[in-house]
Amino acid sequence: MKILIIYAYPHHDSFNGAIMSNLMENLKSEHQVKIIDLYQEDFDPVLRFDKTHLRRNLQFDREMTKYRDLTVWSEHLIFIFPIWWGGMPAILKGFIDRVFAAGFIYKYKGLRPEALQLKGRTAAILTTHDTPAFYVRFFQQDYGKVLKNQVLKTMAGVKTTKFLQVSFLRRSTETKRQKFLNKVSQYAKSLT
Amino acid sequence: MKILIIYAYPHHDSFNGAIMSNLMENLKSEHQVKIIDLYQEDFDPVLRFDKTHLRRNLQFDREMTKYRDLTVWSEHLIFIFPIWWGGMPAILKGFIDRVFAAGFIYKYKGLRPEALQLKGRTAAILTTHDTPAFYVRFFQQDYGKVLKNQVLKTMAGVKTTKFLQVSFLRRSTETKRQKFLNKVSQYAKSLT
Repeated sequence: MKILIIYAYPHHDSFNGAIMSNLMENLKSEHQVKIIDLYQEDFDPVLRFDKTHLRRNLQFDREMTKYRDLTVWSEHLIFIFPIWWGGMPAILKGFIDRVFAAGFIYKYKGLRPEALQLKGRTAAILTTHDTPAFYVRFFQQDYGKVLKNQVLKTMAGVKTTKFLQVSFLRRSTETKRQKFLNKVSQYAKSLT
Repeated sequence: MKILIIYAYPHHDSFNGAIMSNLMENLKSEHQVKIIDLYQEDFDPVLRFDKTHLRRNLQFDREMTKYRDLTVWSEHLIFIFPIWWGGMPAILKGFIDRVFAAGFIYKYKGLRPEALQLKGRTAAILTTHDTPAFYVRFFQQDYGKVLKNQVLKTMAGVKTTKFLQVSFLRRSTETKRQKFLNKVSQYAKSLT
């Protein structure tokens, strides 16, 4: 399978880094794997447009060609990122804002969006946060759900086949962390 | 009142720009008003930290001093931005990621966050999006609610006293737009 990993943590000496290396170690060698490490690439997440650089032409933005091509190349997308303030880090939000342009990912057909280039593919979301699981479940919005439901499912036509989150990371035990990494390994091995 | 406007749209020749100018025209002259226009300032929304630039020291990040000072100076915050992909544009998400640091906006007291510098202040959220109102109400997450409930209320101790959103902007009539701008004017006049 052609797998594209999108990694959005400032460095690798961290639990997000451990998720990434665990994943890499356990993916079968038949897969083709490519990585977009947004921080290492110094990705600029700020979407700009004006009266001369029109919003409707963002799908052709040359700075984003490389990322559009990688996205289209992939059969399975894996997002690894921490939840900050309930949502994606700005660098990942901006990746969506800039790369997932109208005309490339979707177009409107009357009232409804119609998925385009990524339609029918699959994705995984592997994420970490510091909020107790109970609060997230009952009181909090987003926590990866916007990426899963609105961005991927509704607009891009991509089904999230795996959603793993570790909650309350700041107070987690070694055992809890190891348990989560085991889930990551299992998921990696299950990909065929 | 000391009012800080945080504006997060790429330019001013747009409906977000119209909201801004409507607001400015209708605020009473007694107020002191300052503006952070994130695009005009070329704000860098990417939060970085590593083993030498520690996460816990982000509250002292010198690049953000100006923004921390403006935020503390204000008594009422007004956010103006479009909803993209269900949430804030990356440039505004990164403003929260970088400026609203632990130790400045909140600290943990055991399990619970305790609001610090902004505690007891008020805010307004004025936002625009392209999704039909019905979908947002029943199916969609965020759409400004993460900023309102998690960022401002739970962590910062800031109450959102006004939340105005115009939905389905891409198909809105002149009448609907004007109606929304009238609401903005009324809100602006109501501030004392």
